[in-house]
Amino acid sequence: MSKLSTLEQLLVHELKDLYSAETQLIKALPKMAAAASSPKLRAGFEKHLKQTEEHAARIEQIMEQLGASPRGKSCAAMKGLVEEGADVIHEDAEVAVKDAALIAAAQRVEHYEIAGYGTARIFAELLGHKEIAKLLQRTLDEEGATDHELTRIAKTINADAIAAVD
Amino acid sequence: MSKLSTLEQLLVHELKDLYSAETQLIKALPKMAAAASSPKLRAGFEKHLKQTEEHAARIEQIMEQLGASPRGKSCAAMKGLVEEGADVIHEDAEVAVKDAALIAAAQRVEHYEIAGYGTARIFAELLGHKEIAKLLQRTLDEEGATDHELTRIAKTINADAIAAVD
Repeated sequence: MSKLSTLEQLLVHELKDLYSAETQLIKALPKMAAAASSPKLRAGFEKHLKQTEEHAARIEQIMEQLGASPRGKSCAAMKGLVEEGADVIHEDAEVAVKDAALIAAAQRVEHYEIAGYGTARIFAELLGHKEIAKLLQRTLDEEGATDHELTRIAKTINADAIAAVD
Repeated sequence: MSKLSTLEQLLVHELKDLYSAETQLIKALPKMAAAASSPKLRAGFEKHLKQTEEHAARIEQIMEQLGASPRGKSCAAMKGLVEEGADVIHEDAEVAVKDAALIAAAQRVEHYEIAGYGTARIFAELLGHKEIAKLLQRTLDEEGATDHELTRIAKTINADAIAAVD
């Protein structure tokens, strides 16, 4: 483990974590889409998969500018988040209740990423990397939009879930 | 694993996850406080430890009302988040850079909890558990305030971190 001496090194460190998070999510989202019963939710996960691929590519582009590799770190938090998503997938649950649980897991993922990109964007700004800060802001906006979209989809699904009886 | 048939069962499931998250955090926060160099950051972590203990007690109170145990689930995501925090604690880093990294880890934790409590509060509202929804909203407000407080503390620390040279 090399020493973290500067904020730029910490930015690289944070971006490696986010890159690992995005690549883990690319593997997890198709499984979450397959487990979703609501066509809207499935479509939402599929749309977010495409965005997630773009987010990973964006980090590769940023790291090239910073002269660093995006690889070399494994995001333990996303590993846990994906495990929780997998638990939901394999849970014996009523259809709408499972969809509600999938949304709950996905929103935890979005919030994790929002926190991570928020930090990275601030570091990039402070370091005067304007172009990189803009790219990170774009991802941040898209993660925020996904979170809101999930809240919107949840409204119908929660209404169905509440109608489910024991 | 018993079947998740109703939204109320999913609410209990989500609260068990949050309870596990809070109890893991109670163990992790003193270590994060001890690793912080900035007195403000250390005080922030210590204040949040007291709040976290209250949040766990609040879930115990809610679960009693729901006739369920808060125990029985291990939150894999918080396990990963705490692991990442521990990595930061043991990282060889310049003082202000380590503090900035501790804040980054702590804000990921806050966002995880904000997502979790947000979901649980909505479920409680939909199920007509007004008192429980209020208690969850109180925790949600406190987690949000902690996140903002960390952003405020980060401003000074980031300025110090940016002055650190390679």
